[in-house]
Amino acid sequence: MKFNILTLFPEMFPGPLNFSLHRKALKKKLFEIKTINIRDFSTNKSKTVDDKPFGGGPGMIMKADILQKSLEFVNKKKLKTFYLSPRGEKLNQETIKEIALNKEIILVCGRYEGVDERFLKYNDIKEISIGDYILSGGEIASFILIDACVRLIPEVLGNKESLASESFQNHLLEYPQYTKPTKWKNLSVPGILKSGNHKKISDWRLKKSIEQTKRVRPDLFDLYKKK
Amino acid sequence: MKFNILTLFPEMFPGPLNFSLHRKALKKKLFEIKTINIRDFSTNKSKTVDDKPFGGGPGMIMKADILQKSLEFVNKKKLKTFYLSPRGEKLNQETIKEIALNKEIILVCGRYEGVDERFLKYNDIKEISIGDYILSGGEIASFILIDACVRLIPEVLGNKESLASESFQNHLLEYPQYTKPTKWKNLSVPGILKSGNHKKISDWRLKKSIEQTKRVRPDLFDLYKKK
Repeated sequence: MKFNILTLFPEMFPGPLNFSLHRKALKKKLFEIKTINIRDFSTNKSKTVDDKPFGGGPGMIMKADILQKSLEFVNKKKLKTFYLSPRGEKLNQETIKEIALNKEIILVCGRYEGVDERFLKYNDIKEISIGDYILSGGEIASFILIDACVRLIPEVLGNKESLASESFQNHLLEYPQYTKPTKWKNLSVPGILKSGNHKKISDWRLKKSIEQTKRVRPDLFDLYKKK
Repeated sequence: MKFNILTLFPEMFPGPLNFSLHRKALKKKLFEIKTINIRDFSTNKSKTVDDKPFGGGPGMIMKADILQKSLEFVNKKKLKTFYLSPRGEKLNQETIKEIALNKEIILVCGRYEGVDERFLKYNDIKEISIGDYILSGGEIASFILIDACVRLIPEVLGNKESLASESFQNHLLEYPQYTKPTKWKNLSVPGILKSGNHKKISDWRLKKSIEQTKRVRPDLFDLYKKK
């Protein structure tokens, strides 16, 4: 999978994606990151990329004409393009799976107060939000999206982790996990997990998943019940 | 604000937090990142930090005893401690504001299939989730939390951006923004934004905020209506 990143900070990449299993996956070319510096497409002397918003208000807006040139530089094949923004549709594991079906995508990372709306409309760019909080730019949000997509690529996780039985399967959060030592600080591992009875263990884990989801995420629990 | 990070990948920090306004804030010591390598607290020869889960299943679980030693190494003052995990309470701008009130916190970054549940319970560690998707570890999630907290520190944003009138105020997403050129690709800036009539501009922006929220995030729109 290839990620084309339109950004004002290309040196930020691959950054945290150059560690551990991602580092191995990059070396094996299981995924690829190409950065495009938006500033390279500014034509004025001071290489500005933004201007004041029409209608007033604080901050600066990234200009549509410059963004367009950077997008057209990479987008010869009409790739699916996403803009990371708190105004977008909320990202979840289902949408990650859909995005990961693409062989190549474009991610637009905004800075300042965002981008000119016409750039998004003209190019039919999908706005996606990684969560209900405000970040200083789209770059860190793009790491989230790339990390979540890359670990779905076959061969990346190997046997170390599993894609099954993790959180958000059937809208449930994962059950609690325990490892050695058996007794620690007077806290014991639940006996059932040492019983060897697979049916009882999986029943216990489902019960614990339901309890955790109900307590922490009633919104997900409602979705689980409706299934 | 000081962030103590328990991680297996200390070299990942400050990483993307060493750019732009964060870089300036780091230099001015408006915030500080201290990493603690969990692996340093493993006592066996191969420096392992994980073991198989009781009850079976794929993946490895980070051991409570080793995590405890790394936590006690930093936590002399009983600092608030957070574990970044999809099983946690969902992070939003309100919880970011609460977390940002702390002068110093600890963030535990898990890897593999997570950490021994007893470590969380024993230390009353709060589990928080940045969103409903699975990442390869807590480090990239910690960047999100740190970024969102740091930009709330006075002096960090300066006049460049604004904390007011951004998404999630009153549960509404932000209105669309426009800048020069006035006409681009046959798309014009809405005339009202060039009218100079502040009342009409703010009415239009509120209307557009409501439309966007209703269309993209009916869940937030319900919260807005209930207010």
